[in-house]
Amino acid sequence: MVRDATTRARRQQRREGGGAVPSGPAYIKRAIPFYEFLDEDGLVKIEEQADWIISEIGLEFRDDPAALKIWKDAGANVKGTRVRLDKGHARELCKTAPSKFTQVARNPARNVEIGEDCVVFAPVYGAPFVRDLEGDRRYGSLADFEKLVKLSYMLPSLHHGGLVICEPCDVPVNKRHLDMVYAHMRYSDKPHLGAITEKSRAEDSVKMARILHGDEVVDNNCVIMANVNTNSPLLVDKVVTEAIQVYCGQGQGIVVVPFILGGAMGPVTTAAAVAQALAEAMMCGAFSQLVKPGAPFVMGNFLSSMNLRSGAPTFGMPEPTASNYIIGQLARRLGVPLRCGGSLTASKLADAQAAAESADSMHSTVMGGANFVLHAAGWLEGGLVTGFEKLIIDADRLGGYQKLLGGVDLSENGLARDAYHEVEPAGHFLGCSHTMSNYETAFYESSTSDSDSFEQWSERGSKNTAEIAFDRWNQMLKDYETPPLDPAKDEELRTFVEQQKASRPDAWY
Amino acid sequence: MVRDATTRARRQQRREGGGAVPSGPAYIKRAIPFYEFLDEDGLVKIEEQADWIISEIGLEFRDDPAALKIWKDAGANVKGTRVRLDKGHARELCKTAPSKFTQVARNPARNVEIGEDCVVFAPVYGAPFVRDLEGDRRYGSLADFEKLVKLSYMLPSLHHGGLVICEPCDVPVNKRHLDMVYAHMRYSDKPHLGAITEKSRAEDSVKMARILHGDEVVDNNCVIMANVNTNSPLLVDKVVTEAIQVYCGQGQGIVVVPFILGGAMGPVTTAAAVAQALAEAMMCGAFSQLVKPGAPFVMGNFLSSMNLRSGAPTFGMPEPTASNYIIGQLARRLGVPLRCGGSLTASKLADAQAAAESADSMHSTVMGGANFVLHAAGWLEGGLVTGFEKLIIDADRLGGYQKLLGGVDLSENGLARDAYHEVEPAGHFLGCSHTMSNYETAFYESSTSDSDSFEQWSERGSKNTAEIAFDRWNQMLKDYETPPLDPAKDEELRTFVEQQKASRPDAWY
Repeated sequence: MVRDATTRARRQQRREGGGAVPSGPAYIKRAIPFYEFLDEDGLVKIEEQADWIISEIGLEFRDDPAALKIWKDAGANVKGTRVRLDKGHARELCKTAPSKFTQVARNPARNVEIGEDCVVFAPVYGAPFVRDLEGDRRYGSLADFEKLVKLSYMLPSLHHGGLVICEPCDVPVNKRHLDMVYAHMRYSDKPHLGAITEKSRAEDSVKMARILHGDEVVDNNCVIMANVNTNSPLLVDKVVTEAIQVYCGQGQGIVVVPFILGGAMGPVTTAAAVAQALAEAMMCGAFSQLVKPGAPFVMGNFLSSMNLRSGAPTFGMPEPTASNYIIGQLARRLGVPLRCGGSLTASKLADAQAAAESADSMHSTVMGGANFVLHAAGWLEGGLVTGFEKLIIDADRLGGYQKLLGGVDLSENGLARDAYHEVEPAGHFLGCSHTMSNYETAFYESSTSDSDSFEQWSERGSKNTAEIAFDRWNQMLKDYETPPLDPAKDEELRTFVEQQKASRPDAWY
Repeated sequence: MVRDATTRARRQQRREGGGAVPSGPAYIKRAIPFYEFLDEDGLVKIEEQADWIISEIGLEFRDDPAALKIWKDAGANVKGTRVRLDKGHARELCKTAPSKFTQVARNPARNVEIGEDCVVFAPVYGAPFVRDLEGDRRYGSLADFEKLVKLSYMLPSLHHGGLVICEPCDVPVNKRHLDMVYAHMRYSDKPHLGAITEKSRAEDSVKMARILHGDEVVDNNCVIMANVNTNSPLLVDKVVTEAIQVYCGQGQGIVVVPFILGGAMGPVTTAAAVAQALAEAMMCGAFSQLVKPGAPFVMGNFLSSMNLRSGAPTFGMPEPTASNYIIGQLARRLGVPLRCGGSLTASKLADAQAAAESADSMHSTVMGGANFVLHAAGWLEGGLVTGFEKLIIDADRLGGYQKLLGGVDLSENGLARDAYHEVEPAGHFLGCSHTMSNYETAFYESSTSDSDSFEQWSERGSKNTAEIAFDRWNQMLKDYETPPLDPAKDEELRTFVEQQKASRPDAWY
């Protein structure tokens, strides 16, 4: 079944003139409403709390005097490193941020729209380990990284490459970003993120984007974004403010994510944690607009619950599920795109726990209205591990969400009245004209779910989902074809990477 | 971890005065809004189509002349076995059905409310096979059945026992219902369903309820319900009409479920299948109210998609997910309780496929507004198999949905302003007063999800979810204590079962 699907997909791709290029739309445009979890009163309570935090408690902005100067110039109340804004000021500053923007890809057919009714899925980010059925759990390597970039490129329901699909731990820390950004530019033509861990690495990322796209395109478009976390509670360090200055300063995009493990980096109650996340995100959004009004800013949210006997973070639980719905409402009211959720789990394996937690997390992510979903596929073990099989299983489910977000056809054909003239009560619709003319597109076709009979499934070796996914990603890598890239640009990118690497000694921190 | 949780739960139960009795509320009262998938125009289109089907195409009511007489007396257009109602008539007749009703359990603390903002979870129904990690896949037996009744009794997030948790295939078909109903009455004190497969079996079920509850209680309350499927498309046979007459005739409840595999028993497009389901359900609802105005009627819906290469049904896919949301809206507009969805999957194993499909199915089931959820736990392989581990894994997730449906605390404590006076920016909330006073109830505590570190998990044997669930249900059966039952009633029930069994030869159909 898997092979059949692959073969057919390749045939289709060949027809479309490419090699093993991904099919499917560049991004999702949702046709269904958002779910409104809280009422107006509830939303106002949380917004007032966020305003109270910003005006009364304030946020720390540390290690970046330039950031404090920007705040002072904007009329903020700055005492030492503590920054407070009058109620409503942060929200007002966020108004210049676009509610939707385009991230340009090197292949224009893969440009994505981020915001409003558009949804973009990207894979897991930041895991030091990888896991697959063959190699078990191990540190990620550059070879793993490149495989994961190739798979993400081929998976039709991933619209964006993210960046750190796994940590290439065999490359020195201060040089990794060069290899990672290059791999995304070379082995995929989907949009991706740049580095943030240090100012020079952020700058290198934008420089490489300038080589790839040319200055004129970069100066007039968002071609690269970066994703950076606050140090909750209420601390924004220079990694954040420098990344905003590097990316937004050049008109590029920034995603800022308050990462709150409830009970540790924020209060243990969901409403309070969401309010704190809103406060942190609004302040970073405001800062991005002070750096460059109109720069693309994505409000992030990453709220995790906790096992209160062990202190370990838990995922896919009802509290973060509720927060996905609520933060969606808050982001729409603020008028900025939202990143939240993902296919998250604490499970070590691509098993039932992993899938159940990922599904509840992701279902609320898409129904709640996230616009950019990092960690949409491949996340295991609280984000410590990128799972090869998990990537495939999640991406398959993402295709289902894509279909769900498309809504239901209510046209004459969708309602199928004619079919009842052809099929009598107690008859069957299997061969009727309406079925024949609609069956190819009627239902989502899963590539990892097995719906065959017990006997057929047994004959094929009684494989579980992970085993089916293992076969699939191995076959995909065999089918992979590198998307074409202007050799001169490729050469220029390689030279830049080599020069940067040669210019500094290896560092492992 | 699992053992700790069990031990603590048992301690708590002991404190509460019982043995190994389930904790948790008797049913869920939702505190969050319903998700509105379609707008008014879309809903009207589907309702008009249902009315068109009822008035123009009509439904077949076969093999039950009494049913045809009831329709004729009500002014229906009856030609042969085809029954048509004027537009709006079926909806009008449904108006006497209660929007919410109580099913009385033998333990009054376990009475459930079905309808409006109340949600009741019941296990899988009707599987001929069972599967567990030790015994693999096999025909269900009465011994399996009794174990499953005991587990369902003990699981705090199952509020209702359903009936055919598996088929006890070692008992003759014409006697199974007696053993099944007795097992629910004896080994659990939660409410349950009665038999429907033949009129005498339905009558036996209500007779046993009369023994258990006494005539006065039965004549004035719903103490037993039954679940019956139409023969889609548009065929209602005597199994349905007789079950309605037996149960509703005595003021008991009925759940009628159009079971539509899209492309076979209904059109391949979701809107059409939902409209057909609404037409079938409205007609059966109308019929129930003609039998006895005010009888508890639950509108059912079971819409499955199809693998269009093999014709096999698929579950947890985006089309039935959408239908769960839509049918919820339609049921609320009709003003009757809804049964739909469940933890459905085509997977053979309690693996990632099973969990992902079950979660998307169930998430939409609860957010869409189902009131009575059969198949909420234990379903595998398209309903052919009851999985012991799947039952445990699903039930654990149901506890999460229960928490989600409870909404988010927006009180002063929920917003936790005081915590920010105690915890400075860049501090941590782990030991603060607000965390200490809230941590016990802040987060859902899962009994099957493992959130421990890789090292801890490895030391315990690197168990996947199914293995964790296997340990748990085996421990639960060791801890099981039969809820007390008046020995005289027990004797009377046993005597009735024995007499009925002795009165007829074994039949295996």
